[in-house]
Amino acid sequence: MTGRLIDVSVALERPIPTWPGSRGHRTFRTMAIESGDAANVTQLEMDVHAGTHVESSLHFLAEGQPLASVPLGELVGPALVVEIVGPAVTPALLEQAGIPSGTTRLLLKTTNSALWHGDGAFDRHYVALTAEAARWLVEREVSVVGIDYLSVQRFEDTPETHRILMRAGITIIEGLDLTDASPGAYELVCLPLRLGQAEAAPARVILIDRTATT
Amino acid sequence: MTGRLIDVSVALERPIPTWPGSRGHRTFRTMAIESGDAANVTQLEMDVHAGTHVESSLHFLAEGQPLASVPLGELVGPALVVEIVGPAVTPALLEQAGIPSGTTRLLLKTTNSALWHGDGAFDRHYVALTAEAARWLVEREVSVVGIDYLSVQRFEDTPETHRILMRAGITIIEGLDLTDASPGAYELVCLPLRLGQAEAAPARVILIDRTATT
Repeated sequence: MTGRLIDVSVALERPIPTWPGSRGHRTFRTMAIESGDAANVTQLEMDVHAGTHVESSLHFLAEGQPLASVPLGELVGPALVVEIVGPAVTPALLEQAGIPSGTTRLLLKTTNSALWHGDGAFDRHYVALTAEAARWLVEREVSVVGIDYLSVQRFEDTPETHRILMRAGITIIEGLDLTDASPGAYELVCLPLRLGQAEAAPARVILIDRTATT
Repeated sequence: MTGRLIDVSVALERPIPTWPGSRGHRTFRTMAIESGDAANVTQLEMDVHAGTHVESSLHFLAEGQPLASVPLGELVGPALVVEIVGPAVTPALLEQAGIPSGTTRLLLKTTNSALWHGDGAFDRHYVALTAEAARWLVEREVSVVGIDYLSVQRFEDTPETHRILMRAGITIIEGLDLTDASPGAYELVCLPLRLGQAEAAPARVILIDRTATT
């Protein structure tokens, strides 16, 4: 486990961009030492799609599979971070990125990552996959795709982009903050809460940079 | 990252033992495809001390530190699982367990693990540390201690057991299910949700058994 750990999860603290209509997240104390309680105790209430989270096919497919269908081993292992510069992730930009064949875990770093460090307003012009890019990932037999905003599909698109990925059994990680991850090869450790029967779960996600043996 | 992955987290699904007075956890759908919505969306509401979770010193110390004070590297790395057979974890039983000096992450497996697989009733006779055992861990300079029920301290004891650990800066993992982990050496990966300002956060925790290269 040698190497530098990079936290690519969004802190559920400050105001962060929230999907329109979503309940987002909130925390509050139900016990407080300063009020005379024996301990401090926090309550967490959230849309499981707030912040950094993992989705299985039950999210957009009526006959989809819940999160328990995703083996943990799929979310732990070698991963590639590529930077995509453009208003959308297209097959042409994916081709240009020089993704080696056999890449199973692909994390897409875009200008979105900076949006986590702004005023918390939701920006509907975030960068995401076109339906054609989703098909490209299916053809390349990617098993996990991650992106650095709240959806893999563009705001104005239909859920078809999600469904193309989900019908192919591709697991989706959304809400990554890849600010601190330069493009390159890492060890991904993505651990969602164990909400096995749900369609998604909030996750803590780290990248291990093995080239930096600290 | 080669090796067998063992999930030592409690599923937040079935009725599971809940601390008396705690709100526990619940999930419900806020959108459902079968009701005509475009997607299935789940809401999660929980006491951050329900199920498997990590605690920092702010939980029981008024001047304690929030979870952000715990470096992720403390929760990722070599760990030892020892089995303690007895009604409480005592210095004598810890001595008997033959824990090598220099052990920094110690996970205590007891008969508690079976309690996760029962009817979900809270059992106040769970196995936990005596205050003397907490002092023993401080003297041994352990940095992380984990246990397989909802508290490191016995139900009838005062918070002193927690406070001894927390004053020494020891990070606590509670609510592990060590049923599938035989005693021995592992790589621990414990990733709590990024609730940096809270006193605790729910976590997904895995052990990597490097002797099993699958």
